[in-house]
Amino acid sequence: MKISEIASIIGVKYDKEDFEVTAINTLRSASKTELSFVSNVKYINDIKNSQARAIIVDAKTEKFVPVDSIALVVESPYWEMAKISKYFASPIEDETLPEPKIGEGSIVSPKAEIAKGAIIGKNCTIMAHVYVGANVTIGDNTILYPSVCIYRDCKVGSDCIIHANTTIGSDGFGFATSKLGEHKKIYQNGNVIIEDDVEIGSSTAIDRAAFGTTLIKKGVRIDNLVQVGHNCEIGEYSVLVSQAGIAGSSKMGRNVVMGGQSAIAGHLEVAAFTTMAARSGVTKSIKEGGSTYAGFPLMEHRAWLKLQAKLARLAKS
Amino acid sequence: MKISEIASIIGVKYDKEDFEVTAINTLRSASKTELSFVSNVKYINDIKNSQARAIIVDAKTEKFVPVDSIALVVESPYWEMAKISKYFASPIEDETLPEPKIGEGSIVSPKAEIAKGAIIGKNCTIMAHVYVGANVTIGDNTILYPSVCIYRDCKVGSDCIIHANTTIGSDGFGFATSKLGEHKKIYQNGNVIIEDDVEIGSSTAIDRAAFGTTLIKKGVRIDNLVQVGHNCEIGEYSVLVSQAGIAGSSKMGRNVVMGGQSAIAGHLEVAAFTTMAARSGVTKSIKEGGSTYAGFPLMEHRAWLKLQAKLARLAKS
Amino acid sequence: MKISEIASIIGVKYDKEDFEVTAINTLRSASKTELSFVSNVKYINDIKNSQARAIIVDAKTEKFVPVDSIALVVESPYWEMAKISKYFASPIEDETLPEPKIGEGSIVSPKAEIAKGAIIGKNCTIMAHVYVGANVTIGDNTILYPSVCIYRDCKVGSDCIIHANTTIGSDGFGFATSKLGEHKKIYQNGNVIIEDDVEIGSSTAIDRAAFGTTLIKKGVRIDNLVQVGHNCEIGEYSVLVSQAGIAGSSKMGRNVVMGGQSAIAGHLEVAAFTTMAARSGVTKSIKEGGSTYAGFPLMEHRAWLKLQAKLARLAKS
Repeated sequence: MKISEIASIIGVKYDKEDFEVTAINTLRSASKTELSFVSNVKYINDIKNSQARAIIVDAKTEKFVPVDSIALVVESPYWEMAKISKYFASPIEDETLPEPKIGEGSIVSPKAEIAKGAIIGKNCTIMAHVYVGANVTIGDNTILYPSVCIYRDCKVGSDCIIHANTTIGSDGFGFATSKLGEHKKIYQNGNVIIEDDVEIGSSTAIDRAAFGTTLIKKGVRIDNLVQVGHNCEIGEYSVLVSQAGIAGSSKMGRNVVMGGQSAIAGHLEVAAFTTMAARSGVTKSIKEGGSTYAGFPLMEHRAWLKLQAKLARLAKS
Repeated sequence: MKISEIASIIGVKYDKEDFEVTAINTLRSASKTELSFVSNVKYINDIKNSQARAIIVDAKTEKFVPVDSIALVVESPYWEMAKISKYFASPIEDETLPEPKIGEGSIVSPKAEIAKGAIIGKNCTIMAHVYVGANVTIGDNTILYPSVCIYRDCKVGSDCIIHANTTIGSDGFGFATSKLGEHKKIYQNGNVIIEDDVEIGSSTAIDRAAFGTTLIKKGVRIDNLVQVGHNCEIGEYSVLVSQAGIAGSSKMGRNVVMGGQSAIAGHLEVAAFTTMAARSGVTKSIKEGGSTYAGFPLMEHRAWLKLQAKLARLAKS
Repeated sequence: MKISEIASIIGVKYDKEDFEVTAINTLRSASKTELSFVSNVKYINDIKNSQARAIIVDAKTEKFVPVDSIALVVESPYWEMAKISKYFASPIEDETLPEPKIGEGSIVSPKAEIAKGAIIGKNCTIMAHVYVGANVTIGDNTILYPSVCIYRDCKVGSDCIIHANTTIGSDGFGFATSKLGEHKKIYQNGNVIIEDDVEIGSSTAIDRAAFGTTLIKKGVRIDNLVQVGHNCEIGEYSVLVSQAGIAGSSKMGRNVVMGGQSAIAGHLEVAAFTTMAARSGVTKSIKEGGSTYAGFPLMEHRAWLKLQAKLARLAKS
């Protein structure tokens, strides 16, 4: 899409050199042919260091745009970016892609649907009513149980098991909201990558990234009915027990354990080897690993036990 | 169904004029050809003002039945109504309905199932393993991702997106319980209506109404793994974050935000522009809009923050 | 599988009489041709009384193995058992089983998949995109809504209703973890049995047992998005409201009510006629039935109400 077209859609006058914008991306990840945006004044350092060729900004942040980048000044950068995101969305399926490839020894149910461009490795089992989207790749020996749905462009490793009715790569929960309270979808143009030896339960939902990748690393175990938001990163061998939920863009180290019905808010980091008791809720990053936490707000597990003992006495007093 | 048959099934002697009962309905909504019931003494005003042609009551509530209505007196009105509800249930599918109609430009996967009587608008995408039930109508430009299931008689607007493995219109959680603790299903004969420009995540469940409609208004955004009980009403542009749950018959105004894992109990009202923090739980109606709440039981967000600070000190003391 | 092969896989020298091991089972349930294991010193009494022909133990527990049983001594019994569990797993489907049988009057959608060895009773409705696995049996008059998935060897009774996108019999969340934090799957070789007159909502997950059976007894009502872990037992007429979760191996008596988003930890017992308020969490067994509880940690409902009133005052003070 030409920069001139983008400017026109978002109502910005643009009369400099025209060029092709290849993608929208975050300030940090955008390359020299990409468009970015800033929706929050706290990302000033990211603007200053961005490689993006053009950045959608408002009047307050315009001055931080690097000299090599083009500032597209609007009232509501997030809203305008949402508008543009639609134009960079891939079609759900694409008939021009090559026929799917199925590796030797793999069994694919005639009642599964494998979209064009998909590549399935060797000795996989793809059961009835599974959907494997465009350009999805699946490693060797992986089992997809009935009604698993994998959206386009996602990658699943080897030796994985995904249980029935689980969804990989549905759109992250992203939208801009106007002053009047109306919402505009931010098209989620990233994907999900699941590394090798991962098992995922039934009716779990792992959302694709807005930009970039939602990453489930090697050896992770995810139970039933778990929510993983867009752009999260789940460290190696982490364990997410049933009905746990992680909001968008949070990252955890290896061997983190999330108890049943526990939760992590968005944009946080949880250090390796952290254990979260059932129903605990993380609202601040955990910088040092190896401890056990409980409660909401979160505290050390021992402190939580003491507090609950005191509250039980208070209840009786 | 004839009133004489209904009386016979619930063991009531009836020797007045016979007539056709067209439906079961609530006291408030029942019209002059419909049957209603009262299961709780607190609905006395609703009995007095009901238009229902006949009302199943117990000995205590009989005296409040309007003179124009017929009182069918039983020991357990709710249990007897459950019995009758079965006879008013539509068949799951109906071969006598006309062939489904698919609007111009819509793409329907050959692996989707579209029941008779369904009408799909223009430029829709209906993906593999989707089920669209009898008499369902879908507007224009709507996308149903794989394994979405829409039960009979529901309506989905234009410009909607429903993600994989989500269910619209499954039976509400309704049953009568005998003194011995046995349950009898109350057939859920209502539907779900989803207005235009609504997006719903994956593995979410929106139940059909027992009578009438579960309503999702224009512009609503619902995330993954959310529960919406029967007969709820979600106001325009409201936002329901992942794993939130709403019990039956609760209604919210526009632009209500429910944080992740939050909940609203049944039969409540939440005013417009209310924000509920993650994991908050509403157990009383919120009459004035525009505030932010947290905790369970619910309190103002600031009060909750203060309380948590005090509890953190108590934990350490 | 021969005991000599098992010994070889887990690195134990074995030169006694060879014999066929028919299954892996718990210490309590193992018969005289079966293999068991002990992973925790607290099960010493179970070792002493076990009928198992062979038991995988570590150096500490070896001395408790009955004289009639063979002790296979390893460093990490749970890890080695996980290794062996794979060899006792049935194939997902089995082409050598007889063609499925469908009872008189049952309607099976051509878009459903019924595996070999399945037996479906009379007057059932099996809708599009349903999966019924190998050797599954289904009683009479049962309705399976679209995209219900029932894994192999499970049993569903008569007069049951299972709503869309629900999964019965997916693998329990079982794995052994090495000292380095790596996981090895424990194959879940048990099943799920659902008795008569059970209704289950949409997107619910009921896991198969590791060994033996996950049991849902007669008349149970389960709502949407509920988690039932492996080896649980749900008593007659119990009611599990939306988003409730039960961890593995917990058992409840009849007419237990679990409120919305409530939870029961693993390996507990909950007495009959116990009521758990919404979002309560059970972490100790409830021995006496008939009471109502709330909170997490759990307390009597009245005590919880008092405590919340005191905390509300504390918030304001």
